[in-house]
Amino acid sequence: MSEDLKHAALEYHANPKPGKISIELSTPAETSRDLSLAYSPGVAEPVKAIAEDPENAYKYTAKGNLVAVITDGSAILGLGNLGPLASKPVMEGKSLLFKRFAGVDSIDVEVEAESPQAFIDTVRRIANTYGGINLEDIKAPECFEIERTLIEQCSIPVFHDDQHGTAIVTVAGVLNALEIQDKKIDDVKMAVLGAGAAAISCTKLLILAGMKPENIFMCDRKGVIHSGRDDLNQYKQGFAVDTDKRTFDDAIDGADIFLGLSGPDMVKAEQIQKMAERPIIFACANPVPEIMPDVVAAARDDAIMATGRSDFPNQVNNVLGFPFIFRGALDVRATRINEEMKLAAAQALAELAKEPVTQEVLTAYGLDELAFGRDYIIPKATDSRLLGKVSYAVAKAAIDSGVADGPMPANYPLQSLADI
Amino acid sequence: MSEDLKHAALEYHANPKPGKISIELSTPAETSRDLSLAYSPGVAEPVKAIAEDPENAYKYTAKGNLVAVITDGSAILGLGNLGPLASKPVMEGKSLLFKRFAGVDSIDVEVEAESPQAFIDTVRRIANTYGGINLEDIKAPECFEIERTLIEQCSIPVFHDDQHGTAIVTVAGVLNALEIQDKKIDDVKMAVLGAGAAAISCTKLLILAGMKPENIFMCDRKGVIHSGRDDLNQYKQGFAVDTDKRTFDDAIDGADIFLGLSGPDMVKAEQIQKMAERPIIFACANPVPEIMPDVVAAARDDAIMATGRSDFPNQVNNVLGFPFIFRGALDVRATRINEEMKLAAAQALAELAKEPVTQEVLTAYGLDELAFGRDYIIPKATDSRLLGKVSYAVAKAAIDSGVADGPMPANYPLQSLADI
Repeated sequence: MSEDLKHAALEYHANPKPGKISIELSTPAETSRDLSLAYSPGVAEPVKAIAEDPENAYKYTAKGNLVAVITDGSAILGLGNLGPLASKPVMEGKSLLFKRFAGVDSIDVEVEAESPQAFIDTVRRIANTYGGINLEDIKAPECFEIERTLIEQCSIPVFHDDQHGTAIVTVAGVLNALEIQDKKIDDVKMAVLGAGAAAISCTKLLILAGMKPENIFMCDRKGVIHSGRDDLNQYKQGFAVDTDKRTFDDAIDGADIFLGLSGPDMVKAEQIQKMAERPIIFACANPVPEIMPDVVAAARDDAIMATGRSDFPNQVNNVLGFPFIFRGALDVRATRINEEMKLAAAQALAELAKEPVTQEVLTAYGLDELAFGRDYIIPKATDSRLLGKVSYAVAKAAIDSGVADGPMPANYPLQSLADI
Repeated sequence: MSEDLKHAALEYHANPKPGKISIELSTPAETSRDLSLAYSPGVAEPVKAIAEDPENAYKYTAKGNLVAVITDGSAILGLGNLGPLASKPVMEGKSLLFKRFAGVDSIDVEVEAESPQAFIDTVRRIANTYGGINLEDIKAPECFEIERTLIEQCSIPVFHDDQHGTAIVTVAGVLNALEIQDKKIDDVKMAVLGAGAAAISCTKLLILAGMKPENIFMCDRKGVIHSGRDDLNQYKQGFAVDTDKRTFDDAIDGADIFLGLSGPDMVKAEQIQKMAERPIIFACANPVPEIMPDVVAAARDDAIMATGRSDFPNQVNNVLGFPFIFRGALDVRATRINEEMKLAAAQALAELAKEPVTQEVLTAYGLDELAFGRDYIIPKATDSRLLGKVSYAVAKAAIDSGVADGPMPANYPLQSLADI
C-alpha cells in the first residue's frame, strides 16, 4: 500500500467522526407523544406481544434486518492474531458494506474469549438479539467447530464469511472459467495450495457443484494431503486422496485448475507451464497472490486468471456475496444458510457475469466496454443488479430446501435499495 | 393505558420499518476509492494502529461514542421477568433516547444467561466493543453483584440505570423540595417503601448528599428494616437501623419524606396525614403510584409531591439522567461512573430547575408559565439545556475525582446536539 493510501485510510477512519457507522433513529422522537410510544408507557405493548409470541420480535423490533459481525480477532485480514479490539475497524467495515450493498443493518461485536468454548457460549447467549450472525476473521481450525456448534445452537443464520463468502465467489468464477475454457466440472483436476478455512470451504462447494473429490489434490505445508498421511486433523482428513503425488509440484503437474489460498509468491512460472491446456488459475492470496498475472501471462497465453485484487481482472471479492446472501436469508426468515443457498448464490453470480454489462458499471470502472470472457468471469461489486439476482436466488433456495417457509417476499426481486 | 395508545404504540413499532433504530454509514462509501479506504486494503492501517496502541480505538472506530444497553430481561418495566427477547423494544427505546437526547450511539444486547455468572462472563467478554455499558431491567438482588463485578472487570463505565438513573433524578427533586419546604437534609426523617434496586440506590445517594442513615426507615414486605432482624440479605443489612419502629405505618409517622419505589396504592391518606409538617412525597411506582396526587392534595395542602408519571407535575424521569451522564463520561473518557459523578448530575439537575424556564419548554408542554416551586422541582425532559449542564457537571466530577485525566473537552459546555 502506498504511503498516500495509508495516510488517507487513517484520515478516513478518524473523520468526520471516529469510525464508520452510527446508530440513528428510524422513527420520530420529537414530541412527548412520540416518546410515550417509543418508551414508557407505550413500549409495554410490543413487549407483551413478543412475550406472547416470539415471532413478534420480527414485527416490532429491528431484529429481522440486523446482522452482527462477530470476531475474536484471531485472524485479522492477512495480519494474524492481533486480538479483538484491533479488529474493530474491519468489523465496522463489514457492517458498512452490509448496509451499503444490501440495506442490512449491521453492528460489530468483538469478543475477548479465553477459549473457543467461551466464544461459543458468548455468541449463543447474545444471538437472539440479531436476525443473523456473520462470523469474521476467526482462525482455523477453531473456526470450524465454532461455526458448526453455533449453527446447531442458534435458530438464526450463522455464516463464517471467510470460509463461505470466498467459496461462493470462487465457485462462481470457476464455473464461468470452465465454460470459457470448454471444460467439464466433473472431469477436471484441481491442485489446491493451502488447507485453511477458505481452501476447505471452496473445495467443498466445488465438490457440491460437481467436481470429483478424487480429482482434487489439496496441499498443506507438508505437501499433498493423501490417504497415507497420519498427521491430518479431522478437517483435512476429509480431503485425503489415494494418490502417488506427494509435493505441490506433483499436484499442479497436469492440473486443469489451480486454486491458491495460501501466501505470496508460492507458485513459479514453471509450475504454471506444467498445467494442462487452457488452465484456470485462481491465485487468491491477498494482497500478494501466489503468482502475479503478468508472470502467468508471460508463461502461457491460454490461461484464465483470477486474484483477490481489485487492480487486476476477475477479482474474487467477498462483497459480491455476503450482503446479498444475508439479504435473501433475512427476507424469507431462513433458519440457516445451507449448502443449497451457497451454491444458488454462486450460480446467480456466474449467470450475472454472462449478462450484458450496464453503463453504470462501465462508468464506475472507467471502461468503454466489458463483456463475458477471460477477463470478465465475475461480476463487479458496483453492479446494482447483484442485489436483486443474488438475494432472489438465495431466498428461493432457502424455501426450496426447506429452511424457510416462504412465500417469496412481495418486493422480490428487489430492484434497488429503495425497495428494502 | 388507553386502547388507542396501545394500538398507536404497536403501529409505531411496526412502521415504517420494524423497530426504532437503524445502523447508518458515517463515512462516504460510494466510489471504489472510498471502499478501498473503508475496507480492504486501507482498513489494515487503523488495525495496525490499534494493535500498537489500544487507545487508537477511540480515534479510528465508533467505540468512543458507543454505549451498549444490555439486559437479561429479568425485570422488564413493571412487567417482570419476560426474558431477553421480549425486552428488546425497551432496550431499543433506551438506545433511541440516548441518541435523541445526547447524541450517543447506542445499541441493545439481550443476553440469554443461565446464571448471573454467565451474564457477567458474557458482558465482560464483549465489553471492549463499546465505550460504555448501560445495564437495564435486571432484577434484584442479582443486579447488585452483576454491576459490582462488571465495574471491577471492565475498563469502561458500567452503569445500571434502574438503580442510579432513578436515584440521580430523585435526589435532584428531593434537594429542591427540601429547599422549598425549608428543611435541612441532615435533619430530615425519611420513610422508604420498597427495598429493591432503585430504593437502595436512591437511599445511598441521599446519604451521600447528607441525609443521616439513622433517620432513614426502609421497609420491605416484612416491615421496617431494623437491626433486630435476622432475615436480611447483605444489601438490605446496610440499611438496618436501631429503632422501635416495626411497620411502615410506624415509619411514616412523623416522617418528613416519603420515598415509594414499591407498587400501586400502597399508601393511605391517613398515613400521609401523620407525616411531619410540609412533607415531601415521592410516590414513584409506575404506572400507578403508591398514592395518587389528588388523594394527597385532599389529605393535606402543605405537601410537595412527585411521581414517575408524565401526566402529573414533578416527573422522576430517568431520561433526565442517563443520556447526559454517559455523554459526560464518554467525553472525558472516564473509566467509571462513580458516586461523585452521580451526585454532580443530581445537583446539576436541581440547579437547572431553579433557572427560568425557556419558551421552548413552555411550548412543548403547552404552558403559559412555569417557575421553580412546588409544582416544578425537576427539569422537563425537553429542556435542551440538560445536555450542556448535566454532561458538564459529570465530566468535571470525573476529572476532579480522578477517574478521568482531563482536560475538559474543547466543545464544553455543549450548546446543542450539533456540537457533538
